[in-house]
Order: sequence, then structure tokens, then C-alpha cells
Amino acid sequence: MFEEKISELSLATPSSFIRSILKTTQNNDIISFAGGLPNPISFPKEELQESTNRVIESFGSRVFQYSVTAGLPELRKYIAAHLHETQEMDVDPEEIIVTTGSQQALDMIGKVLINQDDTVILEEPAYLGAIQAFSQYRPKFTAIPLESDGMDMEKLEEKLKEGAAKFIYTVPNFQNPSGLTYSKEKREALHKLSRKYNCILVEDDPYGDLKFEGKPYGYISKHEFDGSILLGTFSKTVTPGMRCGYMIIRDPELRFRINTAKEAADLHSNVFSQYILWDYLTHNDLSKHIEKIKQLYKNQSSAMIAAMERYFPESVEFTRPEGGMFIWATLPEGKIAMELFEKAIEKQVAFVPGDPFYIDGREANTMRLNYTNCDEKTITEGIRRLGELMRD
Amino acid sequence: MFEEKISELSLATPSSFIRSILKTTQNNDIISFAGGLPNPISFPKEELQESTNRVIESFGSRVFQYSVTAGLPELRKYIAAHLHETQEMDVDPEEIIVTTGSQQALDMIGKVLINQDDTVILEEPAYLGAIQAFSQYRPKFTAIPLESDGMDMEKLEEKLKEGAAKFIYTVPNFQNPSGLTYSKEKREALHKLSRKYNCILVEDDPYGDLKFEGKPYGYISKHEFDGSILLGTFSKTVTPGMRCGYMIIRDPELRFRINTAKEAADLHSNVFSQYILWDYLTHNDLSKHIEKIKQLYKNQSSAMIAAMERYFPESVEFTRPEGGMFIWATLPEGKIAMELFEKAIEKQVAFVPGDPFYIDGREANTMRLNYTNCDEKTITEGIRRLGELMRD
Repeated sequence: MFEEKISELSLATPSSFIRSILKTTQNNDIISFAGGLPNPISFPKEELQESTNRVIESFGSRVFQYSVTAGLPELRKYIAAHLHETQEMDVDPEEIIVTTGSQQALDMIGKVLINQDDTVILEEPAYLGAIQAFSQYRPKFTAIPLESDGMDMEKLEEKLKEGAAKFIYTVPNFQNPSGLTYSKEKREALHKLSRKYNCILVEDDPYGDLKFEGKPYGYISKHEFDGSILLGTFSKTVTPGMRCGYMIIRDPELRFRINTAKEAADLHSNVFSQYILWDYLTHNDLSKHIEKIKQLYKNQSSAMIAAMERYFPESVEFTRPEGGMFIWATLPEGKIAMELFEKAIEKQVAFVPGDPFYIDGREANTMRLNYTNCDEKTITEGIRRLGELMRD
Repeated sequence: MFEEKISELSLATPSSFIRSILKTTQNNDIISFAGGLPNPISFPKEELQESTNRVIESFGSRVFQYSVTAGLPELRKYIAAHLHETQEMDVDPEEIIVTTGSQQALDMIGKVLINQDDTVILEEPAYLGAIQAFSQYRPKFTAIPLESDGMDMEKLEEKLKEGAAKFIYTVPNFQNPSGLTYSKEKREALHKLSRKYNCILVEDDPYGDLKFEGKPYGYISKHEFDGSILLGTFSKTVTPGMRCGYMIIRDPELRFRINTAKEAADLHSNVFSQYILWDYLTHNDLSKHIEKIKQLYKNQSSAMIAAMERYFPESVEFTRPEGGMFIWATLPEGKIAMELFEKAIEKQVAFVPGDPFYIDGREANTMRLNYTNCDEKTITEGIRRLGELMRD
């Protein structure tokens, strides 16, 4: 009845392949490497409950009332201080806008920056939530191959030379889907190129704090982010259910535009949860909590890699992430991950075939495997089954 | 630096006049009739705190994890049952999509339905959050004058005859900003016309439950909503801080499109708060709680009307709402509400000049007054001051 009324924006929006896969894998008997869910053990339940009671008792009605669009000032102050402490960044709380998860930030970046046919540069493979959000505004995507140490900088410069690209979107640390991380050299090169060609650098860093060993790398533009938009989130370190992310934008015009888009999108993000998060963050040691998550994920990642070494044919390549939640495997050329997926579902194992992470709709020979939601024994068994299917 | 990069969508988006007014009236000494905030007394604080503790203890990690895009199934089931109970509506929970407040529903309706230059029909005056959300997608607005019993149906039919309008947007009960309500006759006429001309009827009913006396009117399309999109919210009856609204859409194609837009916009709304709201709603008597709010607002409304009768010159007309949160006053022709506003601020009283509720940027002689956030004594004093200025 409404078919002919649907807008061009809506017709241009792919629905999430992953979310449809997840529906088919909700069956409890399935070993699922398909999702991107944090391990529930990582949620500080008791502490969040304490914080909830404390903010209701301390602030009463204020936590239930309408609030300001840019986000709870106390939370923005905490974020600025935290970025100073962990990355020596010099961020004014006024430069921060709280978003309803990072996904909202991606939608607003698309809305505020993309005109139809504008060029947007992505990694190949790229995070599919970003592809989905940007697609709505009908850009021309250019995908730059991701090498083991970051984008291919030569190809990137070629593309930048060709003409005005609106922005480059990158997940510099433990990328989704590849698990790859930019080297120091490529960080510097990417920052330089984006400035040289006056192209906005959008950095999305949901996993950065989950570096298994040593100090997190932080944002590429951490010391000079005038030409960047930086995205952060509490979804992978505290809780995704509260949908609390943030953007850091120095340019006042762009910040005003994003703020207005946010006003039109949802007035403001859930302020009850912003109070709780802020209270949790100021009454607990976040780094200690993250330490626990890192140890957990490191063990899960190691278990998956050990199982892959044991059960996968040698012709299958895979990444060895330094942090985050994903491993990316590449089947021999000519193999089709989607076909493997169909067989795997029969054997009660799920993963995400690489297809939705490319913008050209290829039949990919790659696959994303998530290790944060199964115990080590289950990981080993799931990988064993996949290995068997790969040898068929 | 980014000025030349801003998209056409963003350039088409007005920033909220009200939210900028609210900033200037945060001074505590000001008597503000400008906001649209529910009275904090209306938030069931203790009960929401109880519900929070209960859902964390009952469901543990699930309340903190990622969730489904359409919203918590339990909450959608409650909403369907509630609509059946209060309006005898026959809604399947699958026809409900939970949104991050009604504002997100407005943004998604704009995104999924409006192509540039499509006609969108609004009331005159219209809710400015809707004007803002739809403006992003650059429609041609047609405003149909709101009479004391609803839109001018003759003018509406004239416009509908002229050609394909994408949708009609209405707030049928205690409209924001006018406080006006559609009569039974105009309800039937509006529904008929929207069907006759195959034009979607978007009904936004945030205040419907706050009818001071007798049974709420409910949605115009409550018994036949195949061609409608219905919007509801818990912001005015439980808490706005949790940003929890919902849409009711029967058409499967349109529902799929809205769901995909929601995926791209924020994956899903805060599920922690959805659990809390659902628990609150199933453990408490909502109608009893609403009874308290209605009594409170009725008294505040009566106090404002009594003061207006006493202090405003006879040449000033105003509405007498049957419910909701706003009164709409009209100054004699030629008077400019914005000029009154400037003088009023000096006398420490604030209201919203009518200007942002019109799509033609007129210098309005109308004004919106909110009565839900001051006690009766303060209301009387504020109206007295305004009355004095009106006689200057």
C-alpha cells in the first residue's frame, strides 16, 4: 500500500545482514561466532545498580526530566578528563556531544556531511554499521584495501588526488571486521594525507581500550584533531544496552550542525543512563574493570587462534588481533564464504561471511569470527567443526 | 573550516528556537511558561527505582546487553494490551516499534517518506519539533489553519485535490502549541479525507491520556489505522528522561523501512530503560498515576485561565484546553509577540512567541504558554506581569 511512497533515502538503505543472521542463530544449540556482543561477564552489574540507586537518591527528579541536547555536562567533563588521562588529549567538554550509541554518530555524520554522489572513503573491508548509515545519504563509496598495518596509503593518496572526498572513515584499532590495527607510520601518514587534501578524518574507536597488552594506541588525531571527528563509546567497556557514545568535534560550525541534527533526531540521549554512567565512572576504577575484560578477551582470542592453527587448513589465512573482539579469516581464492556459512549452520556453527563488509557486493572468500561470547571449550569445538567443513 | 562541507540536508535544518530560549530562561528567578517540561511531581521516582532494582536482579546481564531494533518484546506486548484496554484498539505487538522518544519517530518518518519537494501537510500552528525533523528532508510544507475544533477541512480537501501529498501530520488532542482538540466530526472527516486521497495520516498523541475530565479521545484512526502512522510516548506520563516513545504501523513494507532506518539511526533504543518502564507499567496502576497528573495539570491550567481572565486585556484571545500542557494566546492583529517577549524577559517572565510554530516565518501575534511547571501562585504572578505589559 505504501510501497510507492518510500523515499529515495530509504530505498538506498541496506538492512543489516548481521541482524538478520543473528535472528537465525538465536537458537541456543548453535555455537555463534557471528555476533559482536560483549561478554556479559564484562558488565559491572552490581556497580551499575549501586550507581542507579545513588543518582536517584542524590538527584531525584532531575534524572527523569528532559535534558540538554549535547549531553549531561558532568559526563562530558568526565570524558574530557579521561581522554586527558589516557591519551594526553586536550579536549574541552564543550567539544563533546553525547550520542545514542556510536551508530547515531555515524548517522549524523552522514546526514550533516554527505550530499548525493559525494565521495566517502572507507576501508576495505569496512564496518558495516557505517556502510549502512552513510548509504542512506547516497554517497559514492571508495574503498581502500586494508593491509596488515592499515590502509594502502598509495592508493589512498591516488584517490584523494582525484578530487574532493568529503571524509575518510577509519576504525584504527582492532578494526571491525578485520581485527587489524594501524602502525605508527600509517597513523602519521593517514593524518598527514587527510590534512594535505583537506579531507575530514572520521575515527571510530570502540575497541581501543581493549588492547590486550600495554598502553592503548588511542586516536590517530589525538594531538591534532581540528580536522577530525572522533567517536567513542561505553558499549564495549561498560554496557551497550544504555546506548551511550560520544563525538569529539573541535570545529564550531560542524559541532553546531551536528548538535542541530541531534536535536532533530531525538532531542537528547537518555539522561537517566547518562547520570548512571557518570556516577559509575566517577565511583569506580574503570581501568581496573577494563583490565578484567582484556584478560578475558585475550584468553578467548588465544583459544580461537590456537584452534584455528590446529583445525583450519594451512591455505586459510587469518589475522591475529592485538585487542578487540574479532578475527578475520580468508579462504583460498575462489572459495565462497557464504557457501561455507550455509553448511556451517547445518553443523550448528555461525559466523559472518565477509560480503556485507564490502561495498561492491562481491561473493567474498572472507569471514568474520567473534570470540567474546563463547567459552574457550566452545570456541575450540566451533572452530573444529568449521575446519572440518573447510576440508570437505 | 568545515563550512563549505555541510550537506544540503543539514543546511535545511532549523535549530530549535525553543531550546535556545530555554537556555536564556534557566535563570531561577524567571517565571517560565516557555518550556514544555512535565511537572517533576509527575515522575514516579520511588516506583521507577524499585523497578530498576527488580529488573537488574531478575534479568541480570540481559538488561545491559545489545537488543533488538524494534524494541523489547515485553514492552511492545504491554503497549498493545494497553491500547486494547484504553482505546479498544486491535494492535499486534509486531506492529509496534519502540523509538528514542517521539522525536526519533518524526525523524524516521521524514527520512523514510519525504523526497525533496514532496508535499507535507501540517496544522497551522504546528508542533515545531515536527517542523524541524521534516525540514531536514526538504519537503514543501502546506499549513492548514487550525480552527477551534480541528483543521479547516475545506482547505484541507482543496490541497489534497491539488495532488499527491505524502502525509498529513496532526496532533489531534490538546495540540502543541495550541492546546486545541479535534471534534468528533472533524476526526471522522480527517480520516475519510486521508483515505479518499490515499494520503498517510500521521497522528502524534503525546498528551492524549492527560484529558482533565472523562475518557481520553484516543487516536483518530484507532479503529482503522492501515493508512496511518500512530505515535505514542511515555514522556508525559512516566518520564521523558528515558526517551521512550513508540510507533504503530500496520503496513509491512513501511514498517520494514522504518525498522531499517532505526537500525541505521541507533541500532536500538536504550534497553535498560525499556526493561525498567515495562516493569514499572506491569507492577503499578498507570491510570491511577495519570489521574494524579491530570488533577495537578487541571488545577494549574485553571489557575492560568483565571489569571488571564483577570489580567489580560479583553482584546487578547486564548484557548481553554481540555487537557495537555499548553494554552495559546492571540494578541490583537498588528501586535508582535516577539516584542512582548523581549519586554517580558526584562520583567522576568518567559513564554514562546508563536513564530517558530509557523512555516512561513511570520512575525506572529500569537504565543504559547505552558502551565505545568509553576505552582498556581507563580502562574498568577507571571500572568499578571504579562497582562501589565500587554496594556503598555
